[in-house]
Amino acid sequence: MLNIGVIGYGYWGPNIVRNFNGASGAQVKMVCDVNQQVLNKAKKIFPHIETTTDMEELLRSPDIDAVAIVTPVSTHYKIAQKALKRKKHIFIEKPFTFTSSEAEELIEMAESKDLKIMVDHTFLYTGAVRKIKQLVDENTLGKLLYFDSTRVNLGLFQHDINVLWDLACHDISIMLHIMKEWPSAVIATGTVHFKNDQENVAYLTFYFPSRMIAHINVNWLSPVKIRTTLIAGEKKMLVWNDIDPDEKIKIYDKGVNIESKEGQYKLLVDYRSGDIWVPKLEQTEALKRMAESFVDYVEHGTKIINDGYAGLQVVKLLQAANRSLKNMGETVKI
Amino acid sequence: MLNIGVIGYGYWGPNIVRNFNGASGAQVKMVCDVNQQVLNKAKKIFPHIETTTDMEELLRSPDIDAVAIVTPVSTHYKIAQKALKRKKHIFIEKPFTFTSSEAEELIEMAESKDLKIMVDHTFLYTGAVRKIKQLVDENTLGKLLYFDSTRVNLGLFQHDINVLWDLACHDISIMLHIMKEWPSAVIATGTVHFKNDQENVAYLTFYFPSRMIAHINVNWLSPVKIRTTLIAGEKKMLVWNDIDPDEKIKIYDKGVNIESKEGQYKLLVDYRSGDIWVPKLEQTEALKRMAESFVDYVEHGTKIINDGYAGLQVVKLLQAANRSLKNMGETVKI
Amino acid sequence: MLNIGVIGYGYWGPNIVRNFNGASGAQVKMVCDVNQQVLNKAKKIFPHIETTTDMEELLRSPDIDAVAIVTPVSTHYKIAQKALKRKKHIFIEKPFTFTSSEAEELIEMAESKDLKIMVDHTFLYTGAVRKIKQLVDENTLGKLLYFDSTRVNLGLFQHDINVLWDLACHDISIMLHIMKEWPSAVIATGTVHFKNDQENVAYLTFYFPSRMIAHINVNWLSPVKIRTTLIAGEKKMLVWNDIDPDEKIKIYDKGVNIESKEGQYKLLVDYRSGDIWVPKLEQTEALKRMAESFVDYVEHGTKIINDGYAGLQVVKLLQAANRSLKNMGETVKI
Amino acid sequence: MLNIGVIGYGYWGPNIVRNFNGASGAQVKMVCDVNQQVLNKAKKIFPHIETTTDMEELLRSPDIDAVAIVTPVSTHYKIAQKALKRKKHIFIEKPFTFTSSEAEELIEMAESKDLKIMVDHTFLYTGAVRKIKQLVDENTLGKLLYFDSTRVNLGLFQHDINVLWDLACHDISIMLHIMKEWPSAVIATGTVHFKNDQENVAYLTFYFPSRMIAHINVNWLSPVKIRTTLIAGEKKMLVWNDIDPDEKIKIYDKGVNIESKEGQYKLLVDYRSGDIWVPKLEQTEALKRMAESFVDYVEHGTKIINDGYAGLQVVKLLQAANRSLKNMGETVKI
Repeated sequence: MLNIGVIGYGYWGPNIVRNFNGASGAQVKMVCDVNQQVLNKAKKIFPHIETTTDMEELLRSPDIDAVAIVTPVSTHYKIAQKALKRKKHIFIEKPFTFTSSEAEELIEMAESKDLKIMVDHTFLYTGAVRKIKQLVDENTLGKLLYFDSTRVNLGLFQHDINVLWDLACHDISIMLHIMKEWPSAVIATGTVHFKNDQENVAYLTFYFPSRMIAHINVNWLSPVKIRTTLIAGEKKMLVWNDIDPDEKIKIYDKGVNIESKEGQYKLLVDYRSGDIWVPKLEQTEALKRMAESFVDYVEHGTKIINDGYAGLQVVKLLQAANRSLKNMGETVKI
Repeated sequence: MLNIGVIGYGYWGPNIVRNFNGASGAQVKMVCDVNQQVLNKAKKIFPHIETTTDMEELLRSPDIDAVAIVTPVSTHYKIAQKALKRKKHIFIEKPFTFTSSEAEELIEMAESKDLKIMVDHTFLYTGAVRKIKQLVDENTLGKLLYFDSTRVNLGLFQHDINVLWDLACHDISIMLHIMKEWPSAVIATGTVHFKNDQENVAYLTFYFPSRMIAHINVNWLSPVKIRTTLIAGEKKMLVWNDIDPDEKIKIYDKGVNIESKEGQYKLLVDYRSGDIWVPKLEQTEALKRMAESFVDYVEHGTKIINDGYAGLQVVKLLQAANRSLKNMGETVKI
Repeated sequence: MLNIGVIGYGYWGPNIVRNFNGASGAQVKMVCDVNQQVLNKAKKIFPHIETTTDMEELLRSPDIDAVAIVTPVSTHYKIAQKALKRKKHIFIEKPFTFTSSEAEELIEMAESKDLKIMVDHTFLYTGAVRKIKQLVDENTLGKLLYFDSTRVNLGLFQHDINVLWDLACHDISIMLHIMKEWPSAVIATGTVHFKNDQENVAYLTFYFPSRMIAHINVNWLSPVKIRTTLIAGEKKMLVWNDIDPDEKIKIYDKGVNIESKEGQYKLLVDYRSGDIWVPKLEQTEALKRMAESFVDYVEHGTKIINDGYAGLQVVKLLQAANRSLKNMGETVKI
Repeated sequence: MLNIGVIGYGYWGPNIVRNFNGASGAQVKMVCDVNQQVLNKAKKIFPHIETTTDMEELLRSPDIDAVAIVTPVSTHYKIAQKALKRKKHIFIEKPFTFTSSEAEELIEMAESKDLKIMVDHTFLYTGAVRKIKQLVDENTLGKLLYFDSTRVNLGLFQHDINVLWDLACHDISIMLHIMKEWPSAVIATGTVHFKNDQENVAYLTFYFPSRMIAHINVNWLSPVKIRTTLIAGEKKMLVWNDIDPDEKIKIYDKGVNIESKEGQYKLLVDYRSGDIWVPKLEQTEALKRMAESFVDYVEHGTKIINDGYAGLQVVKLLQAANRSLKNMGETVKI
């Protein structure tokens, strides 16, 4: 039984507690937050879990094997460092850290102590992303042409990060997980509407060595929630609408067959427009599956898709995109 | 009765013929196309309309007062010039021309001969755009924050223009019509997937002197048709989903009220999430309304919203965006 | 070339004229309506078509081979009789007649003069119904369990018929076309809300000798347009949403496998919930296809699916349902 | 603090436990189920809650003030009787009982011992039903014309009840809550597809003394989940789509104005088609709100909308509808 201490019981913390509490092979022993009121709420639901406002108490506890860090990004590096020093495995909210050097340092530290790091890129564990990954790996879509994701809603304005670090972080982790290519450059545009110096709208374009292109549209100030990703391949195209409860993924037998005959200026474009197929997806809650993977990873070393290295790659692209964004769309080579 | 000759009976031509034929105050006298087969189709439906494969025959005809030019962009300038020389008013497909100097020359030529030019920016005549324009003019949305438009489908690959000239042209004309600001710079990214050197995917960001930002996502290679525009203001936000037959425009009483108190680092963000309102839109077909405006413009000089000057402004932004696109997202000042 | 005269240029007439005018092998020679204003509209669009307010003029014309009767139901029988007497083939709006004896008389009369009758059950020619018919005929769905159709909107209140004759007429013709079984009884409930004695809401249940059941929900007083039909078979289930422009038909690999073991009171129910498949449908306009079938039927005797006999069967069920409706849900054996 | 014992931890039980556990003023002390495995699951999530397979143990416990009965309908009467004898307040799953006499007996028994009964008609506590109730009470819709509800999905086949008792039960409770009229008759049609003698498809029509009519379509064998209710009034119409996460209720400024002039046979029907309004709904989870109402009801006698009498009325209509269903649509007076 893996004993878990959870630091941070704000917006996301309750989900982490609920899932680690329900995961087979794990139990939550203690929850820490600076706010006593939210701890009282936790206590009402889970009277058997200890609570504390003192992080050191949690980190010192010899009963705790692993620490879930569910706090603002700006605190990740320091808390993770402390937890690793106390020989705790860590499960850490995304994005992993603010800089790639911090992430690298934490990875190194964990490895030297034989501790594990998992970064909370939950989406990778959803039935939808698992199905897309499988379809791409099996070459059902053919050579990929583009990845175009929109993730907007009237979101929580974060105080320590902009919309790119908050939302594009998801799309970048999904893109890297699915694609087999590393981008060569990024251009990010966007704007700050309010006096907090945090961009609340951003548009990212990643160029790839092949003709593949990726685009990400993120926005904290949208009246509607849109979470739609289009992935087009030469053979088939896919739309992932994460809002749709029943038909999240649709695969279109659509595309163009292009031929250019000798001596002809015009292309012969032949449109294919065939059936649509909506595959059934696994229904298990992603957080539950991820929590159980964490247990397996720590206890048996079973390989995971969201370890520290995966988290580091996302941070690298976020840093590059952020530099472009701050310089009004400057091309940043990666 | 305004007698109209239509040049070009390809994809869009039949709609132009049908609407000018049905418009009160106008009648179509002749249709010209290089393809005799499509002329036969026209003849089957409208036996009373003359047809010809010889454009000169149409332009020479003294019975024809105005010419509708429904041909590829690359031919616009030359045909328009000829028509103006023959003293015909012109109705011309969008985009007006390939360069702003061509557009300026045609405008000057028309004015010197007291002839009229209308550019076919049909969307400006839809119930949806008319309603949005009214809401913005009445300040229902408050100070505008962003304009974000997606216009994608498995489209006709054009041979003489890329997706920017083909599709973004619509969004730019709508943006300029609605907004009261002229952009200061544009950044366009995108890619060519096939060997025709025409970009089939493009993403445009327009920066404005105020903190307003506009983004346009156009794509000829999407399995699904999406035509969604989000317009956010400080008071209210609007979503225009042009695919929805019954609820094209929704106005959301949503937003954030932001306060920053003295001595506080954190913003106080207060989310508003109220009712949604779906205004009833005018149902008249946009093309019909536009055809009748053309008649009024020619016969009584009634001011229109899509004259040569409006067409020229669109061409200017398309040229700037195209330069950025060809230079991998270079910032182009406007 | 089949020369057609159209009687009635009200709500539906313009579609009939447009389609017969565009159909290969046919041409519309004359349009008749009692209202001169609507004839002027027809003349504006189709200057080559003759118009008249005198039905006799049309019926007498030796140039006219077939007559399209697009008038209120109450006039069908008399006009059809006159047209047949004048040796015209007839295309007639649905429902064919008010009583089955009228329909039988017209069929007999036509046969004795070697004339053809087609009843305008347009839906049978849509890509959607053609696909459903094919799937049922190929036994893709397995033994049919139920047919459940909802057809509601804020409709035109008819003066001479109730919502059952107006709207359920469509569903009954589709049901009879697809199913291979004749119902044994009908129960219809509904109500009259206004002082015109015409029911504007009606619910029909048809019982079949097998355990199959059919239900039809029709309503002229719905704020939204719904046109959804569920057809369930033992192997697969189908949803036809006629409002959806792109995904009208979805086939669900869903169902239950039921086993009852000896000595057990409880059933063992095993739910299947697999993929969804959205077949591509033919895109041709149904009215165009029907118009061309009419030409073929008249000129070459090519069998059609909506001849007088098909129209008569629909009338029989409408009569039975209407009797039940008027008697507050009395069971009417068929 | 109200101490609650929960009997039944099958499909719905975990939600009841979670909500009473989280409700302020209440705590779950013990959970009982015949299946030890499901009790182990409860124990994993809530280690502080006692579990037992012996219902008597729970009923005997002096620490328990109220019992939540979350078992099949066929057991309701006996368990409720026992609980009342032990002086426990009861919260009981819907439908209350199988017969109105059982319900009446339980109500009388509770009243004589000053105990409270709440029947779990959860929907009455949703933001949607609360808003509809308010709109009807305020006469926003005007005189009601019809209530038409569809509640279908691929549901759990129940062993002791048919689809009418399982699903139509919801619609009937909502209908009675909203409407101010008691129906005069019911006609129910439907069918049994499998050898369990439980109807899995049913259609109910309720006639009312005014011209109001209500229709309910329930089905356990639908490939898609539909939960749509149309409520039309003379002034406005409303659509409640419970599947839509963001726009559950839409109010349409649509309708007809009907005038019949002297000496005229035809009605003058004037269609109104105006704006649509989507009111913001309360977001609290219905079960949570209901759990807290139960606490208030027991502790302070605060009036509730789903007491034993409300449950009894639903049972009366279910019994009448069931008799009609078993007799192939016989009209049953109420």
